[in-house]
Amino acid sequence: MDEKDYLDKLRHTSAHLLAAAILELYPDAKPTIGPSIENGFYYDFDNLKVSENDFPKIEEKMHEIVKSWESVEKTDESLDQIKERFKDNKYKLELISEFESEGKEITTYKSGEFVDLCRGGHVDSPKEELKYFKLLSVAGAYWRGDEKNPMLTRIYGTAFKTQEELDSHIEELNKARENDHRILGQKLDLFTFSELVGKGLVMYTPKGTIIKNELKKAVLDACKEFGAQEVDIPHMAKRELYEISGHAEKFSDELFIVKSHYDEELVLKPVNCPHHTQIYASRPRSYRELPISYIESTQQHRDEKPGSIGGLNRTRSFEIDDGHTFCTVDQIETEAANLVRAIEKFYTGLGMWGKHWVSLSFRDKSTPEKYIGENEDWEKAEALLLKINDELNLNGKVMEGEAALYGPKIDIMFKDATGSDRQLGTVQIDFAMPKRFKLTYTDQDGSEKTPVMIHRAILGSYGRFIANLLETTGGAFPVWLSPVQVKVLPITDRVHDYAESIKNELKNSSIRVEVDTRSETLQAKIRDAQMEKIPYMIIVGDSEMSDNKITVRKRSGEEEKMIDLHAFKEKITEINENKLNVL
Amino acid sequence: MDEKDYLDKLRHTSAHLLAAAILELYPDAKPTIGPSIENGFYYDFDNLKVSENDFPKIEEKMHEIVKSWESVEKTDESLDQIKERFKDNKYKLELISEFESEGKEITTYKSGEFVDLCRGGHVDSPKEELKYFKLLSVAGAYWRGDEKNPMLTRIYGTAFKTQEELDSHIEELNKARENDHRILGQKLDLFTFSELVGKGLVMYTPKGTIIKNELKKAVLDACKEFGAQEVDIPHMAKRELYEISGHAEKFSDELFIVKSHYDEELVLKPVNCPHHTQIYASRPRSYRELPISYIESTQQHRDEKPGSIGGLNRTRSFEIDDGHTFCTVDQIETEAANLVRAIEKFYTGLGMWGKHWVSLSFRDKSTPEKYIGENEDWEKAEALLLKINDELNLNGKVMEGEAALYGPKIDIMFKDATGSDRQLGTVQIDFAMPKRFKLTYTDQDGSEKTPVMIHRAILGSYGRFIANLLETTGGAFPVWLSPVQVKVLPITDRVHDYAESIKNELKNSSIRVEVDTRSETLQAKIRDAQMEKIPYMIIVGDSEMSDNKITVRKRSGEEEKMIDLHAFKEKITEINENKLNVL
Repeated sequence: MDEKDYLDKLRHTSAHLLAAAILELYPDAKPTIGPSIENGFYYDFDNLKVSENDFPKIEEKMHEIVKSWESVEKTDESLDQIKERFKDNKYKLELISEFESEGKEITTYKSGEFVDLCRGGHVDSPKEELKYFKLLSVAGAYWRGDEKNPMLTRIYGTAFKTQEELDSHIEELNKARENDHRILGQKLDLFTFSELVGKGLVMYTPKGTIIKNELKKAVLDACKEFGAQEVDIPHMAKRELYEISGHAEKFSDELFIVKSHYDEELVLKPVNCPHHTQIYASRPRSYRELPISYIESTQQHRDEKPGSIGGLNRTRSFEIDDGHTFCTVDQIETEAANLVRAIEKFYTGLGMWGKHWVSLSFRDKSTPEKYIGENEDWEKAEALLLKINDELNLNGKVMEGEAALYGPKIDIMFKDATGSDRQLGTVQIDFAMPKRFKLTYTDQDGSEKTPVMIHRAILGSYGRFIANLLETTGGAFPVWLSPVQVKVLPITDRVHDYAESIKNELKNSSIRVEVDTRSETLQAKIRDAQMEKIPYMIIVGDSEMSDNKITVRKRSGEEEKMIDLHAFKEKITEINENKLNVL
Repeated sequence: MDEKDYLDKLRHTSAHLLAAAILELYPDAKPTIGPSIENGFYYDFDNLKVSENDFPKIEEKMHEIVKSWESVEKTDESLDQIKERFKDNKYKLELISEFESEGKEITTYKSGEFVDLCRGGHVDSPKEELKYFKLLSVAGAYWRGDEKNPMLTRIYGTAFKTQEELDSHIEELNKARENDHRILGQKLDLFTFSELVGKGLVMYTPKGTIIKNELKKAVLDACKEFGAQEVDIPHMAKRELYEISGHAEKFSDELFIVKSHYDEELVLKPVNCPHHTQIYASRPRSYRELPISYIESTQQHRDEKPGSIGGLNRTRSFEIDDGHTFCTVDQIETEAANLVRAIEKFYTGLGMWGKHWVSLSFRDKSTPEKYIGENEDWEKAEALLLKINDELNLNGKVMEGEAALYGPKIDIMFKDATGSDRQLGTVQIDFAMPKRFKLTYTDQDGSEKTPVMIHRAILGSYGRFIANLLETTGGAFPVWLSPVQVKVLPITDRVHDYAESIKNELKNSSIRVEVDTRSETLQAKIRDAQMEKIPYMIIVGDSEMSDNKITVRKRSGEEEKMIDLHAFKEKITEINENKLNVL
C-alpha cells in the first residue's frame, strides 16, 4: 500500500473518531458524512455549534476514545437494523435510500462503541496508529454542497504517521496563513475594506498606494519607452458601445448598469478597448501616424457574485494596465516584439523574468461560437504569433481554448504562491474590433484601410498582482517598491537630531524614509522594522554620529558598519532609478 | 437718450427688419418675437429652416428692404383688425390674447410694407440709421423658453451706429469663439467626445493627458510637501455610506445608481470624503498619528441634465483633486495655513497667484435647513477661519450663503475668461462628518476624542480647470504644462540627423520634444508650431550644425541665434523641475 492510500485510511478513520468524540460531548449533534480529503479530513454535523476554542476538549476526547479502538470491523447489521440505528438522523437515512435505489451495498463499521454508515477504508489498529492528529478549523457547509439545503457545521482536521510529519505540516499551514495577502495587507497596512463602502471595493491606504503607484509608473515607463502614449477615459459608456464591441454579450451579467434619471442606458466599463477605439476615431488618421499606441491604468467594474469576492483577487472594481496599439499588418511583428520587450523590462525589475513560461493562447476550433471575428483573420493572427514566437525564441506552448474573445494571444505566465499558473503579461492580435468600429486610416496610395489592434497588458490587475507579490514575497518587496525603504533607528536620544538629519538628506533624494524615535531598545526597533519588511535599517549611535557615518542593516540580517551616508544614498537612488532587483 | 437706449432701439428695429426679410424670402415662416438683447437682438421663427450659409442672402434682402423704411409708425389698427392680420400665426394670437387678459394695450407698428405686433421702441429713420448690422448665428429655442413647447428657429444678430464699432465687436466675438475651450481642445487635439461613449463623458487624448497628468503631479507634489499622503479609492459605494454622510440627500437626483444583479444598492461616488473617513476608520488612531492627510485625484460622477452638459465645464464624470485632513482642534490653524501655502505654491507655477481674491464662504444663517451639523460647531469654525484670515493676511471677504453642506470654507477665487469668479482652491473646516461616521482617536490622556476634518482642493475639477486655462491662455500654456515643449525645425534635409540628435538629447532629460521633418518651408513650419502654441522652436540649418549650435525661437517671436544646446536644456529642465512661470 502506498503512502497516499495509507494516509487516506488514517484520515478517514480519524473522521470516525472525531464523530465519536462529538457524539459523546454533544449528544444532540447529527453526524452526516466524513471523508478523507487532500492533506486531511472533515466531518459535517447538523445541530452542532462549536468553535476552534472547543478543539482542545474535542481532541482530548478523541485521544481518550481511541485507546479502546483495537480495530474497525464491518458489522453484520441488516438493512432494517441499519435504518433503525439511524432513524433519528435524516441525513444518514437519505444516503441509505439513495444507495438502495442505486443498488449499492449498505454497510456499517464499528470501532469501540461507535458505529457509522460506511463503505470501509480504515487502518487496522487505530489504537496503535491513530495518535498524530489535529483539528484545524470550523466552517459552514451546505448538505451535499447545495445552497438550498441546510447549513451544516464542518470540522476540518488532519492526521499523520508521526508527530514530526504532523508538526511540519502545521508549520507550513501557519506560514501559508501568515502569507495570505489579506492578512499581510492588514498587518502591513496596505489596503482595507469597509462594510459601509461595500463588498469587493478595495481602498488602498497610503503605503499600499505607494506600491500601486510605483508599479504603475514602472509599467507606464516601460511602455512609453516603446512609444506608448498615455490617455485618460471615463468609467462609463452607453451600452451601445459594448454591443458593437461584443462585450455586452460576453460579460452580460457581469456588466454593472448605471441608472441615469435621463434617457441613456449607461454601463460601467468592464474593459478599456472600446473607449480607446473612440479616441483613435476622433480624427482622420494617416498611415504616417501609425503605429498609435494608447496606454492607461484605470479601474474596471464587474458585477461579481458576492460569494466569489475575496481579498484583492476578485473584486468588483479593479485597476488594470491596459493598452492598445493601432497599426498596419506589416507593423504587427515589430509592435508585438516591442511589447514583449516592455514586459521583459518590467519583470526584470521584480526579479521575475526567467521564471515565466509563454502560452500561445489559441482558440478552440471546436467551439467557434465562443469567439467573434472572421475565420481567416484568426488563422492569419495565429500564424503571426507562431512566427513571433520563433523569432523571439519565446519557446511558447500552444494552448488551445485559451484565446480571448476576439483573437489569439501571447500570454506571459508565472506561478503564484500556490504553484498555480497565472497570466500576467499579454499581447493579443485583434482583426475584429477595428472592423466592428469601422476604424480606418488613409494609406500611402490614398485608399482607406482598416488598422489592426493589438491589446496588451504588462501586469493585468494591480490588485491581483499585489496579492500575488505579497504571497510570494511575504511582504518583502523589492527595494524600489517598498513603501518605506529605509528606517533610521537611533540607539539613544542623544542622536535623534543626527537621525533626523539623515532622514532629511535621504528624503531630498526621494528615498522613502522614517525615523523610529520611540524609547524602545535597539533590539525592539530592529524586530519591528523586520516585521514591517523594511529593506534597510540605518542604525546610529554616538560613534556613528561622532564619525559622521551610519551602520546599515539589511532586511536579510547582513550588516555594514560605519559606512558613508552619501555612498548609501547613491546606491538606493540607483536602485530606484533603474528598478534594480537587488538588496 | 443714452447710448444704451439708442442701441436697444436700433437693434429692436433690426429685428423687425430681419423678420421682414425672412417673410419675403421664406413666406411660410411664422415670426413670433424679436427683442433686443445685450450686444444685439434675435428673432424667433416657426416653420423656418436656415443655416449660417443663408445669412449673406438674408442680409442682402435686409439692406434692400431698409431703403424704403423712412420711419416706423404706430398703426391705428383695431384689436379685431390685428387679430385678423395674425389669424394664421398662433404665436402672435397667443400673445394677443395674453395681453388682452392682462389689460395691456395691443398695438402694431409699420415700416415700409412690414407690420408687426409691437409695443414700440424704434429708431426714427431706419433708412438712415440702420446700416451697420450683421447676422451672427442660428440656434434652436423653445417657444417662450418652455421645453414642452415647439422648438423655434432663432436668428441672432447685432447692429451698431458705425461700421467701425460693428467690425470691432465682430473681431471680439471671433476671438472669444476661437478661445472657446471646446474649439481649442479640438484644434490642439487635447480631448474628445464620442456619440457612442455618451454625453458629458470626456476622453483625454495623449496631449490632453499630459496636461492633466502634469497638473496632477504639481497638485500632489505641493500637497505632499505639506505632509499629505496619496490614497486610492474605488468609484462606487453602498448608498448607505452617503446616507450617513448626508450626500444622498444633498445630491439626490444627481446620484448615479448602479444596479447590481445581487442584493446591494450601490451608487457612483459624487465626492470622496466618505471613502476617506473609512480609510481613517480602518484601524485605531492615536493622537500621535495626527494630523493624517489623505489626498488623491479621482473621478466623480454626477447625473447632470443632458441639456446642461457642455465641453469640460459640466460633465457627468470629472476628476477632482480632493483631500482630507483629520486633525485635532489645536492643529486646525497650522493645517489650514499649510493648505493655503500648498495652494499658493501651485498657482505661482501658473502665474496666477496674486490674481486671486479670498472668499470666506460662510453659511446663510436664515436658511439653517440647507446645512448639516451643529450650530456651535459652525460658529466655532467660522470664528477660526476669520482668525486664519487675519493671521495669514488673506484679506478675505465674508460671503454669506457660500458655505459647503457641512462647514464654512476659505475659497481662493479667480476670474475666468468671461470675467466671472470661479472657486478653484478651497479649505473647509468640518466638525460634522467625523461625528456622523463616529471617527475617533485616543488622546494623550487615554480618552476617545472626535477628530476634525478639513476638506481641501487645490484646483477642483481638472476638466473645468483645463477649460479655464485654455480660454484664458488661448492654449499657450506655461512651458512645464505644454504637451510639446520644444519643436525642432530643420531648415533642410541635410540637417535631419542633427535635428534627430537634438531631439534625443532633450528627450533623455524628459523634455517633451518633436521634430518637424516635413518638406515644408521654414516659414510654414514656424507658422504651424506657432498655431500649436509650442513654447520653443529650435531652428537648425547648415550653420547651426557645423558650429554644433541651435537657434531658439520662442512662442513670443523672440529669437536667440546660435546658442548652446546644453545651456538651453539646463534652462528647460530647471523650468520643469521648479514649475517656473517663465518663457
